[in-house]
Amino acid sequence: MKKEINNTMETSEGFAPASCGNVAVGYDILGMAFKGVGDQVTLTRRRDEALVITAIESKDSLPKEIDKNICSAVIAHALEELHLSIGFDIAIRKGIALSSGMGGSAASAVAALRALSGFLIEPFTNEELASLALHGETMASGEPHGDNIAPAVYGGITLVRSIDPLKIIPLPIPKGLYAVVVHPQIPIETKGARALLKKEIPLFMHVKQSANIASFIAALYTSDFSLIGDALADLLIEPQRKHLIPGFDTIKKEVLALGALGMSISGSGPSVFALTESQELAEKISQRMISLFSKEGIEADGWVSMVGEE
Amino acid sequence: MKKEINNTMETSEGFAPASCGNVAVGYDILGMAFKGVGDQVTLTRRRDEALVITAIESKDSLPKEIDKNICSAVIAHALEELHLSIGFDIAIRKGIALSSGMGGSAASAVAALRALSGFLIEPFTNEELASLALHGETMASGEPHGDNIAPAVYGGITLVRSIDPLKIIPLPIPKGLYAVVVHPQIPIETKGARALLKKEIPLFMHVKQSANIASFIAALYTSDFSLIGDALADLLIEPQRKHLIPGFDTIKKEVLALGALGMSISGSGPSVFALTESQELAEKISQRMISLFSKEGIEADGWVSMVGEE
Repeated sequence: MKKEINNTMETSEGFAPASCGNVAVGYDILGMAFKGVGDQVTLTRRRDEALVITAIESKDSLPKEIDKNICSAVIAHALEELHLSIGFDIAIRKGIALSSGMGGSAASAVAALRALSGFLIEPFTNEELASLALHGETMASGEPHGDNIAPAVYGGITLVRSIDPLKIIPLPIPKGLYAVVVHPQIPIETKGARALLKKEIPLFMHVKQSANIASFIAALYTSDFSLIGDALADLLIEPQRKHLIPGFDTIKKEVLALGALGMSISGSGPSVFALTESQELAEKISQRMISLFSKEGIEADGWVSMVGEE
Repeated sequence: MKKEINNTMETSEGFAPASCGNVAVGYDILGMAFKGVGDQVTLTRRRDEALVITAIESKDSLPKEIDKNICSAVIAHALEELHLSIGFDIAIRKGIALSSGMGGSAASAVAALRALSGFLIEPFTNEELASLALHGETMASGEPHGDNIAPAVYGGITLVRSIDPLKIIPLPIPKGLYAVVVHPQIPIETKGARALLKKEIPLFMHVKQSANIASFIAALYTSDFSLIGDALADLLIEPQRKHLIPGFDTIKKEVLALGALGMSISGSGPSVFALTESQELAEKISQRMISLFSKEGIEADGWVSMVGEE
């Protein structure tokens, strides 16, 4: 990767959406963008070559040290990879709560790199963006995971075919597919949520879950909403994590009864997501989820967005 | 299912192709038809209501008892399900060797039911054929497996979404996809080959194999030969079974070096299969495989066929 700086640029903004890792059927390999909410990073060129975080707008407390904040660390890493020397004031507007299971670290990394891309004569390709953003995921969870990076870069629903080398397959999205994501305000750390998973699974469960992901992929290519609903089940991970989310079973039962195609945990939680065939139903489900979490004494935020292109 | 007999019919023939279970990436759920070879069943109406096996053309010794021979047992079971009383002389021409890993029991069952279908005023649908044929697989291996039944009925490459209820998704086939299957004449019993498999697999292997099947499905829908080649790998089952096939590693190395998209074990073996982008290469690989088995002192037969429609 070789890039040159466009010296006429003074400032550049980058945005990246929240996302759902796993998408129920594809633990660690599928991801889906929630484009209605995300992180934004603004870079303003400095006269020196320093990186300085000048503003952070966030409900959570974020580090301002360059090597600890994902936005600045990913930019520093990218500049090193590109052998470029340039300084920025970095302003961060974080729309995604920390440890929400909504791909906040991936969105921060991709938003920062998109802002940086604005300073390049030849902007980053999607492949370059995804590859550089992985550095942020390694920082955040100790391992390079692509399941949130890929949708943050490509949008829609993505399959991470492999991490090394990084190969991403953007999947086709049936017209009229809507996603709901609801974030109950209880923290779940990705590292801890990963650690509680059993390291082995029964072969017959692998067979059943393989049938689910294979059917889900086929359903996306054929715009088969009924098959999406039939396939969208997580037999492996959800049963091991759902106890971390108060009221999960009740909420899922109600959401499916309302007509959702499926519902599961977004990434490692605590956020939950559902897919629907209409915006109206998605809005209704979002409201119902928020009110059910409220009965558990938990405040929750919800977002609805069309999956894929408008 | 309700069917009536066409009393003007005297004789009816049915054919079903050999098939490859698993197709490397989808243990127990994917299957692929090898249409160049298969089993044929001819039914001739009798004056009484008996089922009698009158002829068997086969290299192997097959039972003639009605409840032990798959063709007759599947017909008897279907007639019982349909509440029909009718007698047949049954002539069987078995193109597929027993215990070859080429879906012989599925082909026999489907060929027999296709022959029976010819006597019905309204023939069996594919769904009905597949559902009735499962009875034969339960006889043959003790469990109902659909991964050979589905391609024997639908042709091409099929995904068995679930067994109960039986749901099959026929997958699209890229134009110009060829399959080679080579049968080295050493017996492997499906039951034994299943029993040697570990009952648990590591979660991270599930993740990798899920990426393979998901990518393979995407590759079929997008006619992406390069992705088929990249995805067609069995990380779980092949390593546990390949020692049953003398010379497997050497053969695979040579076949991939010749340009095959991938190679693995057909079903529970000992047959092996490969996919290619041309008939010429498929023929060449078939010859090479046969000659490599010959070096191991094993006689082998090979077949080449286009996958999917001509």
